[in-house]
Amino acid sequence: MIWNTNLRWRLPVTCLLLQVALVVLFGVFVRYDLDADPHWIGRQGDENTTSDMENEFYYRYPTCTPPAPGLPCGVQGLLPQPLAKGAVAVAWATGRPLGLINADFCVGSVCVAFGAVLGKVSPVQLLIMTLFQVTLFSVNEFILLSLLEVKDAGGSMTIHTFGAYFGLTVTWILYRPSLHQSKERQSSVYHSDLFAMIGTLFLWMYWPSFNSAVSKHGDAQHRAAINTYCSLAACVLTSVALSSALHKKGKLDMVHIQNATLAGGVAVGTAAEMMLMPYGSLIVGFICGIVSTLGFVYLTPFLESRLRIQDTCGIHNLHGLPGIIGAIVGAVTASCASAKVYGIKGLANFFGFDGFKTSWDSSMQGKFQAAGLFVSLAIALVGGIIVGVILKLPFWGQPADENCFEDSVYWEMPEEPKSTALHPEDSTLKPAEP
Amino acid sequence: MIWNTNLRWRLPVTCLLLQVALVVLFGVFVRYDLDADPHWIGRQGDENTTSDMENEFYYRYPTCTPPAPGLPCGVQGLLPQPLAKGAVAVAWATGRPLGLINADFCVGSVCVAFGAVLGKVSPVQLLIMTLFQVTLFSVNEFILLSLLEVKDAGGSMTIHTFGAYFGLTVTWILYRPSLHQSKERQSSVYHSDLFAMIGTLFLWMYWPSFNSAVSKHGDAQHRAAINTYCSLAACVLTSVALSSALHKKGKLDMVHIQNATLAGGVAVGTAAEMMLMPYGSLIVGFICGIVSTLGFVYLTPFLESRLRIQDTCGIHNLHGLPGIIGAIVGAVTASCASAKVYGIKGLANFFGFDGFKTSWDSSMQGKFQAAGLFVSLAIALVGGIIVGVILKLPFWGQPADENCFEDSVYWEMPEEPKSTALHPEDSTLKPAEP
Amino acid sequence: MIWNTNLRWRLPVTCLLLQVALVVLFGVFVRYDLDADPHWIGRQGDENTTSDMENEFYYRYPTCTPPAPGLPCGVQGLLPQPLAKGAVAVAWATGRPLGLINADFCVGSVCVAFGAVLGKVSPVQLLIMTLFQVTLFSVNEFILLSLLEVKDAGGSMTIHTFGAYFGLTVTWILYRPSLHQSKERQSSVYHSDLFAMIGTLFLWMYWPSFNSAVSKHGDAQHRAAINTYCSLAACVLTSVALSSALHKKGKLDMVHIQNATLAGGVAVGTAAEMMLMPYGSLIVGFICGIVSTLGFVYLTPFLESRLRIQDTCGIHNLHGLPGIIGAIVGAVTASCASAKVYGIKGLANFFGFDGFKTSWDSSMQGKFQAAGLFVSLAIALVGGIIVGVILKLPFWGQPADENCFEDSVYWEMPEEPKSTALHPEDSTLKPAEP
Repeated sequence: MIWNTNLRWRLPVTCLLLQVALVVLFGVFVRYDLDADPHWIGRQGDENTTSDMENEFYYRYPTCTPPAPGLPCGVQGLLPQPLAKGAVAVAWATGRPLGLINADFCVGSVCVAFGAVLGKVSPVQLLIMTLFQVTLFSVNEFILLSLLEVKDAGGSMTIHTFGAYFGLTVTWILYRPSLHQSKERQSSVYHSDLFAMIGTLFLWMYWPSFNSAVSKHGDAQHRAAINTYCSLAACVLTSVALSSALHKKGKLDMVHIQNATLAGGVAVGTAAEMMLMPYGSLIVGFICGIVSTLGFVYLTPFLESRLRIQDTCGIHNLHGLPGIIGAIVGAVTASCASAKVYGIKGLANFFGFDGFKTSWDSSMQGKFQAAGLFVSLAIALVGGIIVGVILKLPFWGQPADENCFEDSVYWEMPEEPKSTALHPEDSTLKPAEP
Repeated sequence: MIWNTNLRWRLPVTCLLLQVALVVLFGVFVRYDLDADPHWIGRQGDENTTSDMENEFYYRYPTCTPPAPGLPCGVQGLLPQPLAKGAVAVAWATGRPLGLINADFCVGSVCVAFGAVLGKVSPVQLLIMTLFQVTLFSVNEFILLSLLEVKDAGGSMTIHTFGAYFGLTVTWILYRPSLHQSKERQSSVYHSDLFAMIGTLFLWMYWPSFNSAVSKHGDAQHRAAINTYCSLAACVLTSVALSSALHKKGKLDMVHIQNATLAGGVAVGTAAEMMLMPYGSLIVGFICGIVSTLGFVYLTPFLESRLRIQDTCGIHNLHGLPGIIGAIVGAVTASCASAKVYGIKGLANFFGFDGFKTSWDSSMQGKFQAAGLFVSLAIALVGGIIVGVILKLPFWGQPADENCFEDSVYWEMPEEPKSTALHPEDSTLKPAEP
Repeated sequence: MIWNTNLRWRLPVTCLLLQVALVVLFGVFVRYDLDADPHWIGRQGDENTTSDMENEFYYRYPTCTPPAPGLPCGVQGLLPQPLAKGAVAVAWATGRPLGLINADFCVGSVCVAFGAVLGKVSPVQLLIMTLFQVTLFSVNEFILLSLLEVKDAGGSMTIHTFGAYFGLTVTWILYRPSLHQSKERQSSVYHSDLFAMIGTLFLWMYWPSFNSAVSKHGDAQHRAAINTYCSLAACVLTSVALSSALHKKGKLDMVHIQNATLAGGVAVGTAAEMMLMPYGSLIVGFICGIVSTLGFVYLTPFLESRLRIQDTCGIHNLHGLPGIIGAIVGAVTASCASAKVYGIKGLANFFGFDGFKTSWDSSMQGKFQAAGLFVSLAIALVGGIIVGVILKLPFWGQPADENCFEDSVYWEMPEEPKSTALHPEDSTLKPAEP
């Protein structure tokens, strides 16, 4: 018997067949349950018990764990927390009270940007960068949510697109021509497999709760969780299929699986609370899995060699591109909103359209959503250039090229003992057993 | 002073004394609080405020984190997610809307079965196996919950018994006679201590929320969490006692502690939402800790050498046997249900017995519970044989014996750098400090 | 260009400037939102919908994950669980029903004490110590909460102060003069970087839910989460600043960051549910970050060399001192309570003062809070001495000095294979690829 373990065609084809079957099944059969539908008026349909809190969602599903967005940055993910609180303070100062969840979304955006520069900047630079980004995040969020009245529950625009392109612009300004030599060390130090895998699993688990955290109570929160979940599921199949198809022996690449599997959650962010439909979410996840995996294989090397953008953790593929996809999906979904789908009451309640505001229509909402994307990109690019130039000033303790990706430059490291930590029985100081 | 660190008798005796004291104390003194009792009619007992959502449970306890069941399988735990969504779709197609939590329970069942075959099959085989198992899981669940009207909140039968015996049957069909030689590698690769420990702690923490996730609102969900918690606690003491007693120097075995401590959660699955009583849960955990630890020490080697069942992760001890115990405990507890214990309203509400359906009685419910166990076992065995034969077909990319438990066959691995990832300061490329 | 990566003054100054700006901004602008204010009477202010469950908190924030306190102790954190259940049983026996959350708080206290003795005692000693500590914890909690009617939602006194000084007294009695030689092994074995980092991140995330878990429903729970969050955020900045300032090259110490960043959560425990105000929480976190980091640098070595207290994990800095600070902050905050701040109804509701109990006033509450601290310390010291003496008895299997911090004394370890677990492709048994 010949053992042929090259899965280059078998694995992708199996995945794609399953994917197509899934979309067809969902498209033909699956609709939102009553609890996740804008026509929702309480479980029993009884006036006396009408309450969003009676929604099945609150009996069964977890709620958002605020600081989780900082998880993949490790301990450095704690740094932006105090400054994001400052943004909350300033928001109060200007008469627009914000909750702590907004601060967490801000932390998420900062951690995304960190992913582009980690290992190449000093802790002081991280703090300065955070200070500016928190300010810009708040300005951008204010323009989008309050002036343009854009919907962006999962933050495809405010968190991911803004964070990613801000970080990429900063790292473009901080370009180090001779850094590509240490690429090998970069991947081994910063992609510690075990930690990244735990991070991926937890983000995967909590993403539905992120995307539903600031939605309107009741059916909108419920729907946001369902849509996110469907998109993430589709993204897994696509990433596995493409990762295998792009390797000459059909092997899977851990970096693709760890990152591209999450891209579906980003791409469904804006539209998650809308009537995207479960099969729509599957299609979004499918497209995003393709784009994200292709990005890791072809775009990241191109950005580094031609555009001089050194993207440490590949945030362009996990946050940049999926964020833009998410914004576009949101604009399209919003421009398709109708009283037929949401119900008249549901439409008014969801889009803040109260029946008297006759000027509102869905195509206008769609255009404003699109405008939100361009505003986010503009603020990210202009802000990133300014902050990058500031960070180039020579007194922030930036590391030399040889010290990049060396934790020991800024961290006191213990002397490595002769014995390994996990197997202390090999210690040279062998105990005499009684 | 002589330092005698052999705890072979001292540790087990201490544990057992504490265990007995615990059961006696609970048996004599502890009863369910109002919030976890079927007589529950709202906190103030006031008609106007009667609401399950007012139950203390929702103010204090966490709710289920859907995809957590996949945690111990690592990134491979994400694979069944899309296919389980497909089962949801098919369920909708046949007019029985299912929620996403059901899909997660299905994922849990698939991940249990994965535990028997991990390291010996290709990703394509995992996908094919998932496709069939998802179908069989749905059929089995439909027969149990809809036709037999069995109660199985924590899935002792539908998730654990079915998943474990399905997986064991598949690995029995896929038997590899010359694989036992690589046993050492198997344990070192697949039981990476740190990751397994984190997995155990998180599963331990979330198990009460799994077992209560699909129970009826209010007191039933509250009771399910309490019972699961008590059973898990008892299981810890028993596993520690027995693990030490079975080692010639009284040492603890990490594999027993990591696995047997969780078995109590499986064994209390079916009966968790019933009036099992806290001391009853302790006794279930106690029995299950013994059975599971003995299984690891004596049964797994026997299964491998005599029955040709190669159980990679020992799922028979964590899911198979505890699942059967759970089904039996559920049948016995159900057959003891009475209006005295549940209240007339509570009994009708809990078992769906509405006071007019005169044919229902508790002994009949008990018999149907027992029937549910046999149906689950039958579907698992027959299905496992069929799927095993399909997986033996030579074009699924199955690895040769020498490649089993080698991640590098299907995963692109980075070249290992000279320096270790955790201590980059030892790198040969030593930076010149300024 | 000269690359000066010594951040000794730049990093601390940046952090402190940000810290001051944060406190000023919060002090001038930020007040509690309606949902976190004791004047809270339901979202719409409408009598018909008045319900604590309508509080925004329950729609957005996570609830406590019971056994999480045991996380940093690893698998050993599961050991106290069954015994803490025993305390619940005894509490029921004496007519004071306790919930499982109390049992978890008890587990937290035991795990704190474990931190002082880990690696120097046998599993039997841990069980005996747990048995006594659970009893003493219940007695102390009964005196504080039921007799003195002290408020201690986050357990600064009952969990942290009591647990830490109990553990420190036990380790003082168990002093081993020749143990300081193995200090190097201690730090490498017990501070496994990766695991500690994951532990820190999860505790940081869940601390707001711990501190709010047993508060009164509605605004008090909401406020407890906000205050804890602010204190933790301030603590991060201070720890980073001081850790850098105390190193001769301005480097950060991982031990400080992993521990001192959490101290803010301990120090705000008692007062978290009170009207501490967000800026008050920032100040508490600021002070506590300083005290905790200084403790690691100067106090722990002093305790070991002069007072013969060998504090394995530095619990004095993370739980002992912050616990005392928390108790003092709580006493001061309580003695400042007034009808103006809480509202007349809010004051009566929060402090259990019903308007008729004319003898209650805030200064008396403050004095009782202070008394609670001294009771906790007294029970911890006296109890610790007695338990320490009992643990010195020669038949509990205590390890010899040479065996301390050696897991292999009590745990069966697998033979270490030639190949490393993470890179199985280097195995000597190289597979022949087809």
